[in-house]
Amino acid sequence: MKYGIVGASGRMGQELLKVFAQHECVYTADVDGVRESGAPQVVLDFSTPKALPVTIGACERFKAACVVGTTALGESDLAALRDLAARVPVVQSFNFSQGVTILKMMLRSFAPLLAGWDAEIVEAHHNKKKDAPSGTAILLGQATGRECPTHSLRLGGVPGDHTVVFANDGEVLELSHRAISRSVFALGALRAAEFALRADKGFYTFEEVVECRKRPE
Amino acid sequence: MKYGIVGASGRMGQELLKVFAQHECVYTADVDGVRESGAPQVVLDFSTPKALPVTIGACERFKAACVVGTTALGESDLAALRDLAARVPVVQSFNFSQGVTILKMMLRSFAPLLAGWDAEIVEAHHNKKKDAPSGTAILLGQATGRECPTHSLRLGGVPGDHTVVFANDGEVLELSHRAISRSVFALGALRAAEFALRADKGFYTFEEVVECRKRPE
Amino acid sequence: MKYGIVGASGRMGQELLKVFAQHECVYTADVDGVRESGAPQVVLDFSTPKALPVTIGACERFKAACVVGTTALGESDLAALRDLAARVPVVQSFNFSQGVTILKMMLRSFAPLLAGWDAEIVEAHHNKKKDAPSGTAILLGQATGRECPTHSLRLGGVPGDHTVVFANDGEVLELSHRAISRSVFALGALRAAEFALRADKGFYTFEEVVECRKRPE
Amino acid sequence: MKYGIVGASGRMGQELLKVFAQHECVYTADVDGVRESGAPQVVLDFSTPKALPVTIGACERFKAACVVGTTALGESDLAALRDLAARVPVVQSFNFSQGVTILKMMLRSFAPLLAGWDAEIVEAHHNKKKDAPSGTAILLGQATGRECPTHSLRLGGVPGDHTVVFANDGEVLELSHRAISRSVFALGALRAAEFALRADKGFYTFEEVVECRKRPE
Repeated sequence: MKYGIVGASGRMGQELLKVFAQHECVYTADVDGVRESGAPQVVLDFSTPKALPVTIGACERFKAACVVGTTALGESDLAALRDLAARVPVVQSFNFSQGVTILKMMLRSFAPLLAGWDAEIVEAHHNKKKDAPSGTAILLGQATGRECPTHSLRLGGVPGDHTVVFANDGEVLELSHRAISRSVFALGALRAAEFALRADKGFYTFEEVVECRKRPE
Repeated sequence: MKYGIVGASGRMGQELLKVFAQHECVYTADVDGVRESGAPQVVLDFSTPKALPVTIGACERFKAACVVGTTALGESDLAALRDLAARVPVVQSFNFSQGVTILKMMLRSFAPLLAGWDAEIVEAHHNKKKDAPSGTAILLGQATGRECPTHSLRLGGVPGDHTVVFANDGEVLELSHRAISRSVFALGALRAAEFALRADKGFYTFEEVVECRKRPE
Repeated sequence: MKYGIVGASGRMGQELLKVFAQHECVYTADVDGVRESGAPQVVLDFSTPKALPVTIGACERFKAACVVGTTALGESDLAALRDLAARVPVVQSFNFSQGVTILKMMLRSFAPLLAGWDAEIVEAHHNKKKDAPSGTAILLGQATGRECPTHSLRLGGVPGDHTVVFANDGEVLELSHRAISRSVFALGALRAAEFALRADKGFYTFEEVVECRKRPE
Repeated sequence: MKYGIVGASGRMGQELLKVFAQHECVYTADVDGVRESGAPQVVLDFSTPKALPVTIGACERFKAACVVGTTALGESDLAALRDLAARVPVVQSFNFSQGVTILKMMLRSFAPLLAGWDAEIVEAHHNKKKDAPSGTAILLGQATGRECPTHSLRLGGVPGDHTVVFANDGEVLELSHRAISRSVFALGALRAAEFALRADKGFYTFEEVVECRKRPE
C-alpha cells in the first residue's frame, strides 16, 4: 500500500515507519514541512490534535482513507473526522492495541455470566508512569460492568501488564494482557490501515477493525 | 430446595452434601439402598452409568428435575435422558465447572479474532494424574478452532490449572483457569439445580445453565 | 513413629491425623479428655496457648519430642518451651509452611543483591479473611529488608497466594508461593516430627527443620 | 567513566552506547576501523571471538579494565583473557542478565531444600528462536541439580520468559524471570564496568559482579 504519515518525525511516527516497512511511504508531514512523492491510499496520524487539519486536508485531496490514533482529541476534532467520513473511510480510536480491545470485548460479553464471582484488577507499569490506575485498567473495569478494586504496581521498566481476576469458592479465572514492545500500537495501526483500504466510506472504531465487520452506512 | 442424591456415599456425593448444606436432602440412593423422607424437587447424579436407571426412576416418580454429571455415559444413557426431558427439566454435562465452561465459550467467540496470533496451552495437574494432556486442555484447544501445542506439567498436588496463551509481535493475551478445591463441580451442580427448578421441561447443557438461557422446546 | 496430638478434635488436629495416617497415634488430648494407648515419641500441638501445659507435661512424662505450631503464644509460653528444650528436642514456629519458609530465606539471602530494583508484594486470599495485608505478606516484606508496597486481593475461596515482584529497567523477577490445600501446615508438622525424632535435645525453629541443620547446644 | 567499545556498530554495540549514554565513549573499534579520542578506563566487547585480540590489545595499551560478553569463546580465547587478568580486572560471562544470574544462584542455594518437591521448567520465546529449550533454561535446570522436564513455548515476539515451578502435595513455589527489553545485557555490562573500575586486577565472573564480592588474588 502507498501510505502517508502526519507526525513522521515523532516517536510514534518512527514506530509506524518501522512496522510499515513493507509498504511505500509517499507522504510525510511534520514540523519540518511536507514531503510528497506520490498519492497515499491511507494517511496515518498518531501525533497531536494540532496536526489534525493537515491530516484531514491530505485525505480530502488524495481521497485517502484516514487512521487516527491521536489522544486528547476534542469534540470539534471528532466532528471534523465524522464529516470526513462522509467521503472516505475513517478509523479513529484512543487505543490501537488489538489485545486490549479483544480483552475489553470479552469482558463486556462474559462478565455478566460471572455475576456471583468476586473481581479485581492488577496492573503494572514502569516507575516513570505518574497516573494510577492506568487508563486501560479503568477501561477494562468499565467493561466488567461493576466496581473492581484495582491495584497499581509501578516497577522498573514494565511496558504495561493488566490482569482481571475473577474468583468464586472453587475456581479462579484470570484474563491477562501484556505489552511486550512499543510496536503494539503501530501493529494495530497497520491492521486498521489494511481494514480501511477495503472498507466503504464511514466512521469506524478500532473494535470494528478487530472484528473485521463493516458497518453499513 | 428439597433434593435427592444418587451415589450419596461416594466422593462426589459427599461433596454435594457439603455444598448443598443450606438445602434439604430428602432422598438418597447408593449401594446401601434408598432412604426417603420426602419428595425431592431435583435429583442429582454424579456417580456411574449403572446408577442412571435409579435416577431416572426417581425423577419420573417425583416429577423431579434431573442434574447428571456422570462421566462415561453412552449413547443409550443419553437417549434415556432425552426421553426423560420430554417430561421434566434435565441438565446433563461432562464438566460442571463454571469457569472452564465460560473459558470455552470465550475461546469459541474470540479465538477467530486472534487468527494472526500464535497460540499454545499449558496445563498443570497433580503427579497422580495419568493422562496428558488433560481432557479439559483438549476441550479448550478445540474451542480455539486450531492446533495448539499443549504442555502438560505433573507436579505435587496441583488440583488443575489451564492457561491458553496467545501472542503476536507486540502483545501477549493469557486466559487462565485454576481449580482451587474439589468443590468446583458441586458448586456447578448447585447452580444447575437452581436453574433446573425454574426451567421448563427440556434437555439443557451446562453451558445453557451458565448463560441462564432457557431453550424453547 | 508413635505420636500424640494435643487438640486432636480441632480442625488442625483432624488435618494432622489425616497427614500422619501412616504413623501410629497413641495419645490424644482435647476438651473431651485424654486417650492413651502407648508412649508417643513426639507430641504435636497446633491448638491454643491454654493447652500448652498438657503438651509440656506429656513430653516430660514420655521423654517425647515436641512440635508446637500454636499461634499467639506469649513470652512465658516460649520460656516454658525453652525450659523443656533442655531435656527433649522442641520445634516451635508460627508458620509451618515449607514453601513460605524457603521463600523467606531466599529473600533474606538475595534481596540485598537486588538493591537497585523496585519491589512490590501482591497477595490474594479468600473473601472471608479480615486482615490485610496477610501475616505472611508482612513477614516476606520484612525478609526483603526494605519497604515493599503491598497489594491485597480478597477473592472467592483462594487459600493463599503471595508474590514478591522485583523489576529494573530491563527485567522482572517474581517469587511466588501458593497454598493448594489446608494440609500445608500438617505436611510441615510431619517434616518437623521426622526431624525432631533424629535431633538432639534443644530448641529449633522450622527454618532449621527445612534446612535440616542441627544446631549445637 | 571513559569507556571503549569493540564492535560498536553491531546491534549489541548500539545497545551499549544507549545504556552508557551518561558516560564518555573515547574509543570504538569495528569493521570500519578504530576511532580514538582519549584513554578508556574500561573496554567492552560483546561482539565475536575474532575481535578479541583488538580488545585485549586495547586493554594492554590503556591499562583498561575489560568486560567481555562475547558468546562462543573458545578455550584459547579464555586463556588469553586469563593472561590479561594478571595485569587488569577482567569480567567475562556468557550471560550478563542480573536477574538470570541471581535466579541461578537462588536455585543452587535452595533447590536442595526442595528435594522432595517435583520441579519443572517452562520457557517462552519469540517464534523466530530456533533452539529449544533455551540456553538459559538448560542453565537454570543445571542449577536445580536435578532433571527438570522443560517445556518450550514459541510465541509471537516474547523476548524471553523462564519459570521454574516446584510443587509438593500442599504448595507451589514459582521462580520466574522475564526479559522486558533488549537492554537487559547492556544494563548488566554497565554494572560490570562499574564493578571493574573499582576491582583489583584479576578474572571475575558476572556472578561475582552481582554479588559485589572482590575475589582475593
